[in-house]
Amino acid sequence: MTPSDSQPYLLYYSPGAASMAVHWMLLEMDVAFEARLIDIDAGAQHDPEYLRLNPSGRVPTLIVDGTPRHESTALMMLLAERHPELALAPEAGSPERAAWFEMMVYLANTVLPAMRDWFYADVDGDPIGAEWVRALARRRLEAAWDLLDARLAHAGSDYLIGGKLSTVDLLAVVTMRWSRNMPRPVMRDWPHLADYVRRLRARPSFIELNAREGLTEWRNADD
Amino acid sequence: MTPSDSQPYLLYYSPGAASMAVHWMLLEMDVAFEARLIDIDAGAQHDPEYLRLNPSGRVPTLIVDGTPRHESTALMMLLAERHPELALAPEAGSPERAAWFEMMVYLANTVLPAMRDWFYADVDGDPIGAEWVRALARRRLEAAWDLLDARLAHAGSDYLIGGKLSTVDLLAVVTMRWSRNMPRPVMRDWPHLADYVRRLRARPSFIELNAREGLTEWRNADD
Repeated sequence: MTPSDSQPYLLYYSPGAASMAVHWMLLEMDVAFEARLIDIDAGAQHDPEYLRLNPSGRVPTLIVDGTPRHESTALMMLLAERHPELALAPEAGSPERAAWFEMMVYLANTVLPAMRDWFYADVDGDPIGAEWVRALARRRLEAAWDLLDARLAHAGSDYLIGGKLSTVDLLAVVTMRWSRNMPRPVMRDWPHLADYVRRLRARPSFIELNAREGLTEWRNADD
Repeated sequence: MTPSDSQPYLLYYSPGAASMAVHWMLLEMDVAFEARLIDIDAGAQHDPEYLRLNPSGRVPTLIVDGTPRHESTALMMLLAERHPELALAPEAGSPERAAWFEMMVYLANTVLPAMRDWFYADVDGDPIGAEWVRALARRRLEAAWDLLDARLAHAGSDYLIGGKLSTVDLLAVVTMRWSRNMPRPVMRDWPHLADYVRRLRARPSFIELNAREGLTEWRNADD
């Protein structure tokens, strides 16, 4: 279970899940890591061996210095801090730092929970009430896309924070990917976000990510 | 609107709201700040002047270096980073750092959104479905209290992270306060959390916080 010295990170992932954002970040940073598939469609997240690493039975788990760590948003903040030279977050003390914390937390406490509700309302709660939970989730997600679209329209930048690529973009784009089969997909209904996503999907790291996770939907070629 | 040099922070708060965690942190750190009341019961968060500072009409807003910043969890991470000597977060590079990121994000993406659902299901979404949203929120919150209670039971520590007080404790206790009128209040049904809360409520900063926000419920004297 312990990664070697030359591969300090070991990622447990499921294709297209929240782990995708961490996987993308590791590729974008070009650091050494190993990735192991946890097939959630086959229920592998409930295997006792995996539950020892992640008692909640979710992905991702990232082994860091021999210890299993969780929560995509937290893992991305930790990785950015451990590799400051790769600059996937504004420097501590810089004016953009507050905006980075704010937007990472916004994605964590608004977009990600609404996506959880959209996809798992009937698993996490009583299936009888799931349509109501999903309706509220949809409303919140569409409000989030409005907000992010307006932010990009006014930013005069290709990126959400600080005029350059950061963890915010990697996490945001992965959440936007999950909208592809929703009633209002980001790529159809939010033009600034659609342009933004196309630019980010063109990155070699995203192309490699899709190849490694075996994903063929929602690539630029599919538009 | 701009704080003076001797008071670098200006906090807009509403008594007992999420702003309470940031307010508590500022008092615990003993840094200079000014606090201004936004009376959300009177709708002051919708005043045009406040909406210029916080377009979402929520509290807190914290003015940092002249710029309005939002999201309690993000503000606490930022403040901890700006005042490392006050040590309200494990040092960058320390083994506890990953646990700190993980637990801050857990509170942000699991506990805080469920509390939002519990209190605002009928405002954020269709009132007809609000009971279903609240039922799921309650289930998630009770699971969170189970998890945090077990963590404290096994930690052999008075605190959630790293064996000492951190932003995690301040944010966690404020969310536990909101359970006081729920069907299962933390103080009644989760013994390790109840002991933990009593210890934290005994801090002079918490007593001062209640005095400043004009709050009389949920103090140790009330037990």
